[in-house]
Amino acid sequence: MIPTIEDVKAAAKRIEGIAVKTPLIRNDVLDEVTGAKVWVKAENLQRGGAFKMRGATNAIAALSPEVRAKGVIAFSSGNHAIAVATASKLFAIAATIVMPADAPKIKLDTTRSLGAKVVTYDRVGESREEIGARLAADGGLALIKPFDDPFVLAGQGTAGLEIAALISPDVVFVPASGGGLSTGTALSLPDARVFAVEPEGHADIQRTLETGVIQRNEPGIRSICDGLLTEQMGEIPFAIARERFERVFAVSNEAVLRAMKFAFQRLKLVLEPSGAASLAALLEGGADVRGQTVAIIASGGNVDVETFERALAA
Amino acid sequence: MIPTIEDVKAAAKRIEGIAVKTPLIRNDVLDEVTGAKVWVKAENLQRGGAFKMRGATNAIAALSPEVRAKGVIAFSSGNHAIAVATASKLFAIAATIVMPADAPKIKLDTTRSLGAKVVTYDRVGESREEIGARLAADGGLALIKPFDDPFVLAGQGTAGLEIAALISPDVVFVPASGGGLSTGTALSLPDARVFAVEPEGHADIQRTLETGVIQRNEPGIRSICDGLLTEQMGEIPFAIARERFERVFAVSNEAVLRAMKFAFQRLKLVLEPSGAASLAALLEGGADVRGQTVAIIASGGNVDVETFERALAA
Repeated sequence: MIPTIEDVKAAAKRIEGIAVKTPLIRNDVLDEVTGAKVWVKAENLQRGGAFKMRGATNAIAALSPEVRAKGVIAFSSGNHAIAVATASKLFAIAATIVMPADAPKIKLDTTRSLGAKVVTYDRVGESREEIGARLAADGGLALIKPFDDPFVLAGQGTAGLEIAALISPDVVFVPASGGGLSTGTALSLPDARVFAVEPEGHADIQRTLETGVIQRNEPGIRSICDGLLTEQMGEIPFAIARERFERVFAVSNEAVLRAMKFAFQRLKLVLEPSGAASLAALLEGGADVRGQTVAIIASGGNVDVETFERALAA
Repeated sequence: MIPTIEDVKAAAKRIEGIAVKTPLIRNDVLDEVTGAKVWVKAENLQRGGAFKMRGATNAIAALSPEVRAKGVIAFSSGNHAIAVATASKLFAIAATIVMPADAPKIKLDTTRSLGAKVVTYDRVGESREEIGARLAADGGLALIKPFDDPFVLAGQGTAGLEIAALISPDVVFVPASGGGLSTGTALSLPDARVFAVEPEGHADIQRTLETGVIQRNEPGIRSICDGLLTEQMGEIPFAIARERFERVFAVSNEAVLRAMKFAFQRLKLVLEPSGAASLAALLEGGADVRGQTVAIIASGGNVDVETFERALAA
């Protein structure tokens, strides 16, 4: 099932009072340097520090009470883990989270501190899908996928609905990897041109759209954008992306670090690398947005001290 | 003239569309560690990165057009300077700003980049009031005082009005130095207990309230809270503070740095030291606020990289 804007609206009702309506922030300097009217959707201020709370809450809320009571499982590089753990705590159900052993320490610690059971795996040698499927079958747990699920995708799209309630952007810059947030946003902003942003060297979505077939990334590729390292885009997101993504930008680690520093100095927001990717594409991607109304989704703020120090030194 | 809540309401109308309505942010961890329902008024997200835009805009808007056209002058350790420069740019008038030579570089640079003429002085050996008075007389400029002015004070109080539109706090923690923001907030939240916060070693307000006479700080005292180093509280603020301040907290540099790190890790907000003072008092001041609705005013986010790195290392 490919979700529609009606599913996003239903998600918005389901998550009301659980996920927060994040602010949409303007900044004089950002307008000056771009020549556009720029609005920053501050999803770093979402509960759990990232947009992922929206999709996880919608998916868990949509389970039948009997299924939900058995508990849920998720596999995630970090923010989806925190989101599922947070939502599970609010629903008072057990959560098992399969996370890469090299995930940022802050994300591992935060997930555990929310009461979830964390199972780690080796990102290069093991398949999180296999581990997740086995644990789910053993425990009768409901799998909350990170992006290739209509309820998760529709939940992520609620950020875009909140944008649409305030402004009518000509363009929206949104980070893309699995595709839940980016295509959920495309659904909720049907009149906006969608500019997707992925990490340099990890440009599977660009290749996917060029070839018309979902492309994989080589395993083991590293980028500072730890939240955007999905092996391949989901099938459901792909069906939306092929219709709606107008451009795909690839941002370098250096551009992302500079965008994080810009957010520190000008926006007074703490962004994680993935959360600064759309800002990096706006500032350094070369798109001419002069005179236009631009929304950028700053998707999260869960960043280690060490990485933030690298940004401050950029 | 001692302003009232009616003056704050008039200020809110005057600054509408110029100063922004900043978000009021909740955080699960902050609620957990305090046992209260805490709301953070994120004035770091205000135009210019601090609340000062509110008072400066109100004072400049209240000038007659003839007076305003001659230009304005202000003396400030930083955020008031940026606010007057920003508001002057929006009103298309000339601004002269008298700033201490040792003000944070980011504040000196930002003020200049806004088109203001910056005159520096030595914080220990020279009187900014004398320099300001001489320049004002020479150029026929209107002096925009940083706090001891009913229009500035009423303007700062608009942050509190925005809080009152959403919640009814039992307690508000607010940084205090000259007294504009703190007593403006007291006016706009007549039913809240006001907990003022000043830097340790610079506790003139505590002594002022104890003695009933405005006390001075020794010149040359340093604190990391560069925005809270006014020599003495203003007369107008004092008239309000003596009636409304229920407690005064003194926060150490170390507590402020830890609060900045908490804001980085949990709130995903960049706070300058003065902007983190009320959070520091809430987290470490020992007040029992369990079960209460608490507002804290995070007054600004204009912080140097070097100081922020100190906070990250805290």
